[in-house]
Amino acid sequence: MVAPLKVGLAGLGTVGGAVARLLQQQDSNALANTLAVRCGRPIELVAVTARAKSEMDALGIRPVRFVSSPAALATDPEIDAFVELMGGEGDPAKSAIEAALGAGKSVVTANKALLARHGVALAALAERSGCALNFEAAVAGAIPVVKTLREGFAGNTFERVYGILNGTCNYILSRMEGEKLSFADCLREAQKLGYAEADPTFDVEGFDTAQKLAILASLAFGVQVDPDAVYVEGISSLAPEDLEAAAELGYRIKLLGVAVRTEQGIEQRVHPTMVPLDSPIARVMGVTNAVSLDGAGFPPITLVGPGAGGAATASAVVTDLADIARGVRAMPFGRSVAQLAGSRRAPMQRHEGGYYIRLQAVDRPGTFATIARHLADEQISLESIVQRRRNGAPHGGSDPDGAQSPAPVILITYATTEDAVRKALREIKNRGVIAGNPQVIRIEKN
Amino acid sequence: MVAPLKVGLAGLGTVGGAVARLLQQQDSNALANTLAVRCGRPIELVAVTARAKSEMDALGIRPVRFVSSPAALATDPEIDAFVELMGGEGDPAKSAIEAALGAGKSVVTANKALLARHGVALAALAERSGCALNFEAAVAGAIPVVKTLREGFAGNTFERVYGILNGTCNYILSRMEGEKLSFADCLREAQKLGYAEADPTFDVEGFDTAQKLAILASLAFGVQVDPDAVYVEGISSLAPEDLEAAAELGYRIKLLGVAVRTEQGIEQRVHPTMVPLDSPIARVMGVTNAVSLDGAGFPPITLVGPGAGGAATASAVVTDLADIARGVRAMPFGRSVAQLAGSRRAPMQRHEGGYYIRLQAVDRPGTFATIARHLADEQISLESIVQRRRNGAPHGGSDPDGAQSPAPVILITYATTEDAVRKALREIKNRGVIAGNPQVIRIEKN
Repeated sequence: MVAPLKVGLAGLGTVGGAVARLLQQQDSNALANTLAVRCGRPIELVAVTARAKSEMDALGIRPVRFVSSPAALATDPEIDAFVELMGGEGDPAKSAIEAALGAGKSVVTANKALLARHGVALAALAERSGCALNFEAAVAGAIPVVKTLREGFAGNTFERVYGILNGTCNYILSRMEGEKLSFADCLREAQKLGYAEADPTFDVEGFDTAQKLAILASLAFGVQVDPDAVYVEGISSLAPEDLEAAAELGYRIKLLGVAVRTEQGIEQRVHPTMVPLDSPIARVMGVTNAVSLDGAGFPPITLVGPGAGGAATASAVVTDLADIARGVRAMPFGRSVAQLAGSRRAPMQRHEGGYYIRLQAVDRPGTFATIARHLADEQISLESIVQRRRNGAPHGGSDPDGAQSPAPVILITYATTEDAVRKALREIKNRGVIAGNPQVIRIEKN
Repeated sequence: MVAPLKVGLAGLGTVGGAVARLLQQQDSNALANTLAVRCGRPIELVAVTARAKSEMDALGIRPVRFVSSPAALATDPEIDAFVELMGGEGDPAKSAIEAALGAGKSVVTANKALLARHGVALAALAERSGCALNFEAAVAGAIPVVKTLREGFAGNTFERVYGILNGTCNYILSRMEGEKLSFADCLREAQKLGYAEADPTFDVEGFDTAQKLAILASLAFGVQVDPDAVYVEGISSLAPEDLEAAAELGYRIKLLGVAVRTEQGIEQRVHPTMVPLDSPIARVMGVTNAVSLDGAGFPPITLVGPGAGGAATASAVVTDLADIARGVRAMPFGRSVAQLAGSRRAPMQRHEGGYYIRLQAVDRPGTFATIARHLADEQISLESIVQRRRNGAPHGGSDPDGAQSPAPVILITYATTEDAVRKALREIKNRGVIAGNPQVIRIEKN
């Protein structure tokens, strides 16, 4: 048998621990020794690094050599491949990966933040040294979307790639819809269950999705990965009544990352999105992730599965190692760095599509005429109008607090532009016919 | 730039024509010249063969060299890779592929029948000559399931792989359920729309699914591909009332191919299957295909997309060519042929699971007691019992034709064995308390 691929692993958290166990399980169990059989050579964990050696001892794995720093492990003469599972968009992860690639060692990482920020430079380094830079685990966990976009559909062009890339948000939205609970209540519950961090901003405000989307957009459309090119809105402003109204109108609200080819270039955006209830992506509930690949001249492909968790993420890391063991050296973003086009932030005011608009209309004569006129002024046509009963008030009746209390009105527009919607709503607000700020959610068609 | 990969294409039907166009479109359009960019070298169609040269002329492609026979094309000195899109489990496809591999040329084929029957021998030939034998297009069209099973999840073991692998059957079942039409009516409609062949046996009796399942089982479980190891039942005996009853009970009926690890080995079977309505696979309607990969220590991965059609299938063929152009030489079934375990037909009488049973109970005292006693004799417990009203008769009332006319009874069992169900139903039939044959459908849990 060919010499084993010798692996150095930096970071022994949930994923790092699972990777160590998965690799050791392979060589201890002859029956399950699938990895060597499937790669033509064994993959052997030879050294690790972590903040403290006690982390290795606590894992219950067979001890391997403990190296004092990521930088030292990255250039360790014994290792062939360096696995970075420390996280963080800067050092020590960044300089360790640079050092490994500089020393001719292939790299596997799950670090979406680092790839989103420095992916182009790292890919260039990998290309120069002829090493692999694999990162299946950085996007959508065990779902093989990075490999599929990098190596698959080689003769096709995509029109749109979109998905549910953050399990925390999808869990919260699923609960809000299912139990008619507020965002705050569902967030607290997600935190209790360990699905959300103590500081949930990164997840719920869409930044995690944006980093992953930037990576997918680069792979699918051949643009440079750049998280600053992504327009980002999170889910914290959503109310249970939005989810309920969406369902009544045949939609479901998901936090999507969407990269789409437009006349203005590749538009990358993350925001709450109304998707048709019968679309595969609408059916994805809880912490599950999903990605749809759309536009190669045939119906879309949708990949659904666990987007996080130690075992799922470790599986993706080990698959990346297996490709290295087999000798596969695919270009990190599916083409040479020199061939990646520049990425720029698409002007959202030119975004085109349908819109869901929820207004608190002031209950007095002429309100709806005012709303309708300002929409018409911007050439916005309405597909549906739902005048919803106020809480506790009988249908069409008046409120105990008096006739002035606002009533929710929900509008679904036909395709229009973001600019037109913003202008019309500004005018409507200036006329004093609505209370508070309008809720606006973009619609994504199948 | 590196020298192009020169391709010879045998077969110019729908898929062959689409492949030819896709390859030529790449080199004619500088902007869309993604294939060369993504492989590091161009892929060039240099020669074709078909039954007649007029087939090439009719395609409207730029003419290439026409070779008189598949065997001559397969060993043509100019070509690097041979694409076989003629179909058929024997010659000329088989001997042409053997000749190409023997001459050191990599092969791409969409020929599931040939792979199911001779896959092991062809893979051994590819291995000896160091060539690729790629067949993404043979199973589930554009869905990247072959590559995912061959190269992905390298460190994991699967417990179950199952899917909707035949669009014709899924279209018919979707229509039967949606429109409450008979199998025969939906088949006729599918034939009119070109979704079913004039002789539909191969599709509707499950043989097409069985060939694809045998290929997936080999990739997922490392067993030799063997269509004779697959238990096969088709959909022609299903009635609209089965689909209706399934929906009422929270299930949907799909023709599934299922490969599952059991104590008796890898059980491979194709049959109408009740799947929970909330499972991803249950949501797949019409001609769409889907595959679920289950059991790597995390929630299942489901891949959904077009399983047929010229553009989708051609996309898979071109992706296979791209891997060859890049120099990837994965083992055809994900491991060396010497490592593939023998495949044998699992004894279906030992199959364990829940069952849906529809009986035409004779309407006389003691009928149900007889049925219940024989089920109990075989230790079969019932999860649900639905006594359905006879057509046109009021609930619980008697039929205009008299008290003897049979009434449908639907039973859902808890997990039991196929053997127990068969024995109990034989006894029940012998007692004369049911009319006709019972309808039996296996249940597949999430």
